[in-house]
Amino acid sequence: MTANASGKAAVKAALRAQRIETPSWAYGNSGTRFKVFAQEGVPRNPYEKIDDAALVHQLTGVAPSIALHIPWDKVDDYADLAAYARDKGISIGAINPNVFQEDDYKLGSVCNPDPAVRAKALDHLLECVDIMDATGSTILSLWFADGLNYPGQDSLRARQDRLAEALAATYQRLGDGQRMLLEYKLFEPAFYATDIPDWGTSYAHCVELGDKAQVLVDTGHHAPGTNIEFIVAFLLRQGKLGGFHFNSRFYADDDLMVGAADPFQLFRIMHEIVQAGALDASANVAFMLDQCHNIEPKVPAMIRSVMNVQEATAKALLVDSDALAKAQANGDVLEANAILMDAYNTDVRPLLAEVREEMGIDPDPLAAYRRSGHAERVREERKGGQAAGWGA
Amino acid sequence: MTANASGKAAVKAALRAQRIETPSWAYGNSGTRFKVFAQEGVPRNPYEKIDDAALVHQLTGVAPSIALHIPWDKVDDYADLAAYARDKGISIGAINPNVFQEDDYKLGSVCNPDPAVRAKALDHLLECVDIMDATGSTILSLWFADGLNYPGQDSLRARQDRLAEALAATYQRLGDGQRMLLEYKLFEPAFYATDIPDWGTSYAHCVELGDKAQVLVDTGHHAPGTNIEFIVAFLLRQGKLGGFHFNSRFYADDDLMVGAADPFQLFRIMHEIVQAGALDASANVAFMLDQCHNIEPKVPAMIRSVMNVQEATAKALLVDSDALAKAQANGDVLEANAILMDAYNTDVRPLLAEVREEMGIDPDPLAAYRRSGHAERVREERKGGQAAGWGA
Amino acid sequence: MTANASGKAAVKAALRAQRIETPSWAYGNSGTRFKVFAQEGVPRNPYEKIDDAALVHQLTGVAPSIALHIPWDKVDDYADLAAYARDKGISIGAINPNVFQEDDYKLGSVCNPDPAVRAKALDHLLECVDIMDATGSTILSLWFADGLNYPGQDSLRARQDRLAEALAATYQRLGDGQRMLLEYKLFEPAFYATDIPDWGTSYAHCVELGDKAQVLVDTGHHAPGTNIEFIVAFLLRQGKLGGFHFNSRFYADDDLMVGAADPFQLFRIMHEIVQAGALDASANVAFMLDQCHNIEPKVPAMIRSVMNVQEATAKALLVDSDALAKAQANGDVLEANAILMDAYNTDVRPLLAEVREEMGIDPDPLAAYRRSGHAERVREERKGGQAAGWGA
Amino acid sequence: MTANASGKAAVKAALRAQRIETPSWAYGNSGTRFKVFAQEGVPRNPYEKIDDAALVHQLTGVAPSIALHIPWDKVDDYADLAAYARDKGISIGAINPNVFQEDDYKLGSVCNPDPAVRAKALDHLLECVDIMDATGSTILSLWFADGLNYPGQDSLRARQDRLAEALAATYQRLGDGQRMLLEYKLFEPAFYATDIPDWGTSYAHCVELGDKAQVLVDTGHHAPGTNIEFIVAFLLRQGKLGGFHFNSRFYADDDLMVGAADPFQLFRIMHEIVQAGALDASANVAFMLDQCHNIEPKVPAMIRSVMNVQEATAKALLVDSDALAKAQANGDVLEANAILMDAYNTDVRPLLAEVREEMGIDPDPLAAYRRSGHAERVREERKGGQAAGWGA
Repeated sequence: MTANASGKAAVKAALRAQRIETPSWAYGNSGTRFKVFAQEGVPRNPYEKIDDAALVHQLTGVAPSIALHIPWDKVDDYADLAAYARDKGISIGAINPNVFQEDDYKLGSVCNPDPAVRAKALDHLLECVDIMDATGSTILSLWFADGLNYPGQDSLRARQDRLAEALAATYQRLGDGQRMLLEYKLFEPAFYATDIPDWGTSYAHCVELGDKAQVLVDTGHHAPGTNIEFIVAFLLRQGKLGGFHFNSRFYADDDLMVGAADPFQLFRIMHEIVQAGALDASANVAFMLDQCHNIEPKVPAMIRSVMNVQEATAKALLVDSDALAKAQANGDVLEANAILMDAYNTDVRPLLAEVREEMGIDPDPLAAYRRSGHAERVREERKGGQAAGWGA
Repeated sequence: MTANASGKAAVKAALRAQRIETPSWAYGNSGTRFKVFAQEGVPRNPYEKIDDAALVHQLTGVAPSIALHIPWDKVDDYADLAAYARDKGISIGAINPNVFQEDDYKLGSVCNPDPAVRAKALDHLLECVDIMDATGSTILSLWFADGLNYPGQDSLRARQDRLAEALAATYQRLGDGQRMLLEYKLFEPAFYATDIPDWGTSYAHCVELGDKAQVLVDTGHHAPGTNIEFIVAFLLRQGKLGGFHFNSRFYADDDLMVGAADPFQLFRIMHEIVQAGALDASANVAFMLDQCHNIEPKVPAMIRSVMNVQEATAKALLVDSDALAKAQANGDVLEANAILMDAYNTDVRPLLAEVREEMGIDPDPLAAYRRSGHAERVREERKGGQAAGWGA
Repeated sequence: MTANASGKAAVKAALRAQRIETPSWAYGNSGTRFKVFAQEGVPRNPYEKIDDAALVHQLTGVAPSIALHIPWDKVDDYADLAAYARDKGISIGAINPNVFQEDDYKLGSVCNPDPAVRAKALDHLLECVDIMDATGSTILSLWFADGLNYPGQDSLRARQDRLAEALAATYQRLGDGQRMLLEYKLFEPAFYATDIPDWGTSYAHCVELGDKAQVLVDTGHHAPGTNIEFIVAFLLRQGKLGGFHFNSRFYADDDLMVGAADPFQLFRIMHEIVQAGALDASANVAFMLDQCHNIEPKVPAMIRSVMNVQEATAKALLVDSDALAKAQANGDVLEANAILMDAYNTDVRPLLAEVREEMGIDPDPLAAYRRSGHAERVREERKGGQAAGWGA
Repeated sequence: MTANASGKAAVKAALRAQRIETPSWAYGNSGTRFKVFAQEGVPRNPYEKIDDAALVHQLTGVAPSIALHIPWDKVDDYADLAAYARDKGISIGAINPNVFQEDDYKLGSVCNPDPAVRAKALDHLLECVDIMDATGSTILSLWFADGLNYPGQDSLRARQDRLAEALAATYQRLGDGQRMLLEYKLFEPAFYATDIPDWGTSYAHCVELGDKAQVLVDTGHHAPGTNIEFIVAFLLRQGKLGGFHFNSRFYADDDLMVGAADPFQLFRIMHEIVQAGALDASANVAFMLDQCHNIEPKVPAMIRSVMNVQEATAKALLVDSDALAKAQANGDVLEANAILMDAYNTDVRPLLAEVREEMGIDPDPLAAYRRSGHAERVREERKGGQAAGWGA
């Protein structure tokens, strides 16, 4: 596990080059079906969300883009928004259409039995590609809340036909350098069946669509007992892993801070990424956070989450791949496992502190955040107006 | 399984005597964290909820009480509300305190680390006993949203001490003929740990409190793979089954119509009830619905749910207990299972139609509902004002 | 739901035409890792297993083939075995290779890091195609116990490469009219990762292999909360559903009698089959049982299981498809669900009794079995020798 | 988290005083229902198992006792066996009765519908108390494979009555300084219902029995999503935590090396232990391993497992309890979580190496094992005879 001098340099270079996207919605208020606990100082518009995301990037050095959610981040002039982001040192990342919060979508969006609703949903998807054009975004990140609450409610198969039709129409609209990532989710908000419940469904659609369609893995969207790193390894082998929505969960789609519930699992996922060379920008895998900070302050929670991904990545980079391959080839179960655990059990925080210092930032981003006075400042500045949230 | 004449009469008598309570909140709007889809004609206040509950009772004959949720059902004069219910032919059932929707409760209510918040929560519990006194309710139905999202967030053990203290204070306040039912829930809205996650926790507290404290089983609140009928049988053996919150779920706490997801499980639960003689009113087991009708119309969904419980009960009553006991004693696995399945596979709808006719109501409650014009009427009458929902 | 006269005739015709394959291994002894409880009268060789399977077919009329498991059913002359089966009125169904019970397979078969073990496993797969040729079997049913117990134990991705190689070599060997079905399984006997854990993995390999490769759905091989009928509907849409291994489970791969744990789920699966027209022989979907009768007598358990599939099928055939499609198109959630439940709640046993009488067999196959004296006879005849089981 | 000098001394003292029991059966062969892969050099009798356990203790310094399983460890003279253990430097730990591997137990042991089988099972339990007397063991460790595969197979409630009767009779037989630990298990080998499925059931029986009966937590015996550290904390609060069977699992009861599947969970469990002062010998909590080494060599796997528990314990001891309590009292979610994670993220291997050197043993027990030549020696010495395993 101990990397030699050149090995350590490569590890540090990889850590410096890492890119983790934060989502605009995680800076706003969120909650459960029971209650949204509003917090003070929360952004009131997309520009203020960009301010917060830019601060996270400034303090961590590895979060240079922000994902948008439309219409939560609707503005009149998207080019202006993108320019504002650039001024703040970040760029616009994935565009996330929302086709689940209007009354028309009660029984689904692109899978709705009503053709008029499907047409409306498709229009919104296409509008989001326009926004990609305007902002320079290269990723259309698709998640559908479509599904059924009751057996018999609709035809599972007919809904797939409708889904395929909408995906194809959207795919056609993508320009050069643009791609669509298709997210899957086992459950919620539909309870009996979701129309893209698992990676297999997303994969099959993406294969039929073509190279610009890839699977998006949200780490919180699986059935209990699912081996997520297997899915990651398999999709990488097929060239169909488009990116991640990172978060963590104990039971359902808890959307807790990534690495908070099962840091070992996060390490195993990053191990597959590293083994496949997919940390490299050329692999085109988007590492995005998708979280809800319901009870904890949002900006420091985001910083912490970025650091958690960095720590898992650093550990994965420390795995002695040659020794591991040798033990695996020998069928030495205990030794192969020990080599993996050796990296996992390493305390990588000193290494990451070094990396940050070399990047010219504070080795302790959370301490730097506390010293920045940001929390106190926005609590004053962002009084009045409507705090951003899932509903706005 | 074929009951002889006297057997059939007993089955019908039991079905006529069955009592299923409906919850006021299921008549109002509800949804997921993503969206509440408002419906037309939804009640705007507790009186209109009582109107709907009374209609469900009128059409089914077995739903003579309504559970209240405070403050969602807050009124100035609870005696007046109870009188109104009586005039409509039903009574006030369980009182459900709400200590999870105020900002103070972000980190819990009776388990909160802040003593001031705990005191406030306890005050509300005691206020709810006052409402029991005013309405004639005999059941305080306790569910706490308390729990933790992150490991380390609070002391699991200290929270139990605080919980025990609040429960004891509430218990002391109960009058003659009043009891408290303590509900457990694996998950949601807390994600890492809930303070009463399973029946064992509820049971241990109830044993320490005394005879007036019993466990409430919500059929949607268990980990995957949990055998709910075992819990029911065990609690009945211990004299600690206070009642049910019926609903159904495929994955988490979906709160779908009872019997919609796993009708065989509902039958097995009712089989344990019947075998233990706990259908009888003297057993003091409260059969209550607790559901959300997010996408389906609420009153017919409630009627359907009541009918689903009736059908499961009728099948359970048809089990040939003598033959079953004999096959079990003989260790005849296939025969014992066959006897149970024989009852389950019976179509009990004709029998229930007969029972309804003998009760002087329509054999087909849903058809009667459609003919009643209720849906159309309330859509007109309940315009304006604020539709009831979880937040109001 | 009430089929009119011509509708009823079609339902009965479909039920008469149904074909359910029973597995040779379910007639032998089986158990858990803790204990195999041997039963009296169990077959001692493949010929006696055929005797039992033929009896199940004779009594039910819909079980005309038997799946073999090699080497458990190894004989010197497979043509002779097939002729014996024909004489008894049944045929040889799927051939199931076993590459998990030799010491060489401790770390896997076709995915083993050792090329010599992989070559040995491939040889066995090819040998099984020889047996298909000799017996007239058209299905090679592939399940691999391959996987990992510990993270790091082997490369998840390299194992997929090895798997693909073995599958391709086997696929090449298939003759006209032969196909391979690729089974997936979440867990067991490998605990950390299985090499084909879900339908997506099987599907991706089958697509790359070609038309003769299809997915096999074992109803017990999914994570908790998985919607199996969705997978069935999706695979039918893609033309990649090869067949089923039917059984039922409460938690893991319990291999209980199909329909015993969740009869409603079995009905929903058959509903998707019926809606897609896949009950028809031309759809080439193989309906096979794969069960273990650890504590119950085997032949009557098999008869019961066949009947359970028939009952679920009959209910699915009774669904009023036109009314259902109309309610679905209207977005009438309650009505659509009610139409489905109406069929499920029907007691189809009288209908199936009629069907059996029209087929010239006893309307009550289990009663006929008891009268046959088979259990008593084999208990005498099959004394001495080695009872068949998983290990033999 | 950084302990000061006196803090560090206390941590080391606690680590030196830790006691982890290894199970005799983990030194023998084991497997799944599909296959037992025999290993060379496996013990052939209880004396050789003691040799292996003594070696594990010699190399780790913290495994000074061995649990026995009867009849797998049946000998003519238990006093002689205990003396042999003493000579080797260890003692006899918990006695584990086996009432699941005789044909009589097909439908259960102490819950069997047949009174003769129940009497036989009870006799064996009492015989095991005799063995406790003879060996100086203080713990009767009870796990029952009892349960049902099919709904209706037997009365859930009657089985509880039978269970209570057998437990009471066994309890009466316990001498001074002896206690019984009652293990629960969700599933396997019974599939539909187990007679002690969860901690609540075990707890309720233990409360009724008295102070000498306590709950045994096997970390692999829970439903998905269960928060095990909550159970540990709750049982400690009630004074009813008797001990652990440590192992790890990804899905069912995988019995993998403890700490291999979810090291963070193991840490959280040990955190509750440390917070409650239950690491201290006076707390009388038995820390026992219960694992199966199906594909990895057994002695080094056991050493590794002991080390995994030590590492989790060391991390738990490093938690800055004062700072944690303060952050919790302040409701500082992120800080409280960070304090916990700070300890978890520490590399405690250097600290444990120090502790070992102070104990006079090798700082790297696995390297010492490899140098010992034990594996090669027993491979020669233990040829011939019958290797120990679950069935022998």
